[in-house]
Amino acid sequence: MRRSIATVCLSGDLAEKLRAAAAAGFDGVELFEPDLVAGEMSPEEVKALADRLGVTLDLYQPFRDAEGVTEPEFADVLRRAEAKFRLMQRLGITTMLVCSNVATASVDDDEVSAGQLRRLGDLAQGYRVRLAYEALAWGRFVDDYRRSWRIVELADHPAVGICLDSFHILSRGHDPAAIEDVPGDKIFFVQLADAPLLSLDYLSWSRHHRVFPGEGGFDLPGFTAHLLRAGYTGPLSLEVFNDVFRQTDVHRTAVHALRSLIWVEDQARRALPAGAQTPDTGPGEALDASSLLPATAATGIDFVEIRCEDPSSVEMVLDRLGLTFRGVHRSKPVGLWTSGAARIIVNQQQAHGAEPHLSAVGITVPDLTAATVRAHRLKAPPVHRRTLSAEVALEAVLAPDGTEIFFGDATTAAWVAEFAGGSDLGGTEGPEDADAPTGGITGVDHVNLSGAWEDFDEAVLFYTSVLGLTAGSATHVPGPRGLVRSQVMTSEDGAVRVPLNVSPTLDTGPALQHVALACPDLRAVVRRARERGLVMLPVPQNYYDDLDARFDLDPELLAELRDLHVLYDRDAEGEYLNAYCPTVGQVFVELVQRSPGYAGYGAGNAPVRLAAQSRR
Amino acid sequence: MRRSIATVCLSGDLAEKLRAAAAAGFDGVELFEPDLVAGEMSPEEVKALADRLGVTLDLYQPFRDAEGVTEPEFADVLRRAEAKFRLMQRLGITTMLVCSNVATASVDDDEVSAGQLRRLGDLAQGYRVRLAYEALAWGRFVDDYRRSWRIVELADHPAVGICLDSFHILSRGHDPAAIEDVPGDKIFFVQLADAPLLSLDYLSWSRHHRVFPGEGGFDLPGFTAHLLRAGYTGPLSLEVFNDVFRQTDVHRTAVHALRSLIWVEDQARRALPAGAQTPDTGPGEALDASSLLPATAATGIDFVEIRCEDPSSVEMVLDRLGLTFRGVHRSKPVGLWTSGAARIIVNQQQAHGAEPHLSAVGITVPDLTAATVRAHRLKAPPVHRRTLSAEVALEAVLAPDGTEIFFGDATTAAWVAEFAGGSDLGGTEGPEDADAPTGGITGVDHVNLSGAWEDFDEAVLFYTSVLGLTAGSATHVPGPRGLVRSQVMTSEDGAVRVPLNVSPTLDTGPALQHVALACPDLRAVVRRARERGLVMLPVPQNYYDDLDARFDLDPELLAELRDLHVLYDRDAEGEYLNAYCPTVGQVFVELVQRSPGYAGYGAGNAPVRLAAQSRR
Repeated sequence: MRRSIATVCLSGDLAEKLRAAAAAGFDGVELFEPDLVAGEMSPEEVKALADRLGVTLDLYQPFRDAEGVTEPEFADVLRRAEAKFRLMQRLGITTMLVCSNVATASVDDDEVSAGQLRRLGDLAQGYRVRLAYEALAWGRFVDDYRRSWRIVELADHPAVGICLDSFHILSRGHDPAAIEDVPGDKIFFVQLADAPLLSLDYLSWSRHHRVFPGEGGFDLPGFTAHLLRAGYTGPLSLEVFNDVFRQTDVHRTAVHALRSLIWVEDQARRALPAGAQTPDTGPGEALDASSLLPATAATGIDFVEIRCEDPSSVEMVLDRLGLTFRGVHRSKPVGLWTSGAARIIVNQQQAHGAEPHLSAVGITVPDLTAATVRAHRLKAPPVHRRTLSAEVALEAVLAPDGTEIFFGDATTAAWVAEFAGGSDLGGTEGPEDADAPTGGITGVDHVNLSGAWEDFDEAVLFYTSVLGLTAGSATHVPGPRGLVRSQVMTSEDGAVRVPLNVSPTLDTGPALQHVALACPDLRAVVRRARERGLVMLPVPQNYYDDLDARFDLDPELLAELRDLHVLYDRDAEGEYLNAYCPTVGQVFVELVQRSPGYAGYGAGNAPVRLAAQSRR
Repeated sequence: MRRSIATVCLSGDLAEKLRAAAAAGFDGVELFEPDLVAGEMSPEEVKALADRLGVTLDLYQPFRDAEGVTEPEFADVLRRAEAKFRLMQRLGITTMLVCSNVATASVDDDEVSAGQLRRLGDLAQGYRVRLAYEALAWGRFVDDYRRSWRIVELADHPAVGICLDSFHILSRGHDPAAIEDVPGDKIFFVQLADAPLLSLDYLSWSRHHRVFPGEGGFDLPGFTAHLLRAGYTGPLSLEVFNDVFRQTDVHRTAVHALRSLIWVEDQARRALPAGAQTPDTGPGEALDASSLLPATAATGIDFVEIRCEDPSSVEMVLDRLGLTFRGVHRSKPVGLWTSGAARIIVNQQQAHGAEPHLSAVGITVPDLTAATVRAHRLKAPPVHRRTLSAEVALEAVLAPDGTEIFFGDATTAAWVAEFAGGSDLGGTEGPEDADAPTGGITGVDHVNLSGAWEDFDEAVLFYTSVLGLTAGSATHVPGPRGLVRSQVMTSEDGAVRVPLNVSPTLDTGPALQHVALACPDLRAVVRRARERGLVMLPVPQNYYDDLDARFDLDPELLAELRDLHVLYDRDAEGEYLNAYCPTVGQVFVELVQRSPGYAGYGAGNAPVRLAAQSRR
């Protein structure tokens, strides 16, 4: 299908918006009237620029308060409309969005609205313009797409069809299935927007909180599948009013936007029965199975990489925790530490002056080629690392938070052999490595990445679409310098857990990242580390007093937790013990011991951790 | 009344919070449990620090899920509570907040809740603790203060009273008048919070969007008046969960918080009949009329000051617009320009390297002493400027946006005589100065200040409490780099209009300010300025095409507006013409011609202006 984006989704002036949409790969744009009115370019210049860039101008929007009015008011509607039709001719735009009346409606009668739309259609036809009538969620009388379709049916005019906007339909909880009752050629335009599920008035929700498909709570693949079944062949267009995207880099936002459309279209096609995936007759790409994105799924964490100029502080922590140094890479200043299935790479390449930080995560997938083709088709920025011909070449892409995501499968597991002494490890084997110390670290429980608040929605979509992770519920953790929003992304079986932490808006320092290592006997690991001189992050006595009041713990256990600075949580499904190593640079190691049923991360302990780290 | 603040309102660790509350002048604090639990200080250290700082620990909060539970669950409630009572003894706190049950309630029966609170009260009494039972807006069964009071009445226990939180009452739209049915000595605690009027679920609204009194949409003076009439003599305490205050400077937030309490208490007392303002019997200050803040009201704009190192670009604009240079101040490198009642000071003091910016606004008030005493009692930071003994000493305070606000009245009008040639001006006379050119500039229509988004709520309260302005509705203006929030603050008669512009969060450049000068014949002023070489900010042709479509203007008028780059708006009450001078530094001059009935600012034109300025 053709892919389009409203100019209001992007920052900058109209020329910047057009250039960014074209560069990202959009087929067309919706021209949002204020972007034209506030701009210097004449309509003819806009048309010429769009032509040269190869993007079509798919829609002129919005035209307001057109129907449901008195006859004297309607005369002014016709006058206003005709001025805009002339303008559209200069722009070469043939479809205009007509919103249901909000401000001036005084006649609540389908026949009246239909009659006025029909007369507007007569006028429009003379300018070769089509009208796409849209029910706004806050329309005075018309706020349901089923009613706007009834009015369009009554109008019965070739130049009058409907526009469907997912926000206006799904925000009100209307069932989108009735879309299939509308002939595809009477759906003149489709606008897609997702949104978090808020209880907020429709107007504020719509104007400030729309996000791209895959970033909110609406079922947009399902919505889009209804469109496909209705036989709609026009553009899928994004109309996303969002306070953040208005401020962020226009080129990055445009790519991010296109990724969401590619993803939602793919998801929608997968929801159709195989027979329905027939080539369409529209101008877009063919609707056959080969155009589906290759499927992928993250199945495990292959490795975690920490980059820094001076690795000594990181390596001291790893050593004290009982990980084994497996040697240096044969062609790069990169070391490997392991314990069980936990593999941590310490990378000194291109790290001049860098404090230790989490620079890359290796993710295992069932099919390396499928995963990388999928990532590239989803416009994930590729990452290049120089590889000698005899070495395993790992494919990687850059996540919005700045982490490099490497893909690995059975064919790449030999990378560990490139480390001196690493050949006996055998790559991605089971969690219990033969030479892991009994009761030691067995693998990676989760990797906690951090990002700027303005990149949050993009990061959620990235991990959803590129890695096939699912967003769980978000929490807010109070820290001494503001709330930290935490959003967990997990694979279906829980083997890959990536909590994303979003810093408070005003926090200027780099946010901490961490890697959480799993150990079946956490207290043993902590005791051994302490004997070797590693002091865990101190936890205040008040915490243990409160723990006792909350959980009525066995006094011996409580004393041991207090002594070892181990934190504790419990829910109906099981227990969670964790402890934090001292922060080195921007990263720290957490130790985790979780009961099989416990699915959380000790959220109640996170404020205690933030406060303790802030004191260091 | 005693003034208190919950530690959750402030950023930092517990010691920082206590120090900031004490330094601002609070009498006490509510200890929010997580601040203790995450902190290193022992309960004894917290008590000792509070004692030394002279702030009382007024409340321990919150204790959750205490009543409406089964008997086995209640046994665990008693165990949990006793641990906290012991802790409170160590802290020296005698009142605990008990919230209505959210999570574990299964018995919806007032008698059961009352019986359980009574037994909790028996236990508490042994530790000399009182329980303040609060109905949360999202309580499972108890979400109305009238029901919590019924339960407390049924409990009929000296250690069990109620806590009233304005958010939980006003967010649900409950009438606060029934507060007066509660005996004052059974109101064990009061928490005040304001909030913008959102349609959002109560929990999110409460946890993220509370603001200090005077900054939201609740009638907190009315709420507080009910408390006074009920005979409540305990502390007025702020409990404001707010994402921004958690991040901002703790000392500044504490002062800002105290200002809101001083203001709301003053407003509440004014709402009482004079006889009710009798001295109270509590530990706070006497409730007599002399403790009321002196009343004030902004009656006009005395002057606007632009500060810069090099005044030539500013002065060129003022000269071309037809203002008259009145000479240099007798003791300072400061010049005065006037036309009619518009007085603009160009100040080169302490302006090394400074681009032109709006540094000060002079506000006329009926009584200079009253206004300055009021400002100081509201903790407005004083501003000092060196004044020679023979000169008029103007009192000033610093607004949160960084603007210095000077107060003037009839006694200070002689300041203009300190400028060479200024003695013939006579200060704050009528809008039509004798020597203003006919059709020229007659005064200041409004002054548009700009601030950082994180200071927005503080600025609204400042202008409300210190200058007696009123907040109108807020709008969002889309600019090419994000939404600009605009909040107009006006005096009752509209003589003082101060729109506050809040920049997009990510905007790093300094936001523009402007002074809007009133002229009865704007087109004449623009034409004359153009003859003198001043080119107004160019307005795109597309704007005039759209204007024509919207308003069906007389072609001659439209042509003239287009030629002169004058913008236009119209509503049912009148017309508004405006034009923008080129920006110099961070400030520009706007020209305004408004019909008497038109109360707006041409909001529809602001995006056009932002786009045009962004192109320059």
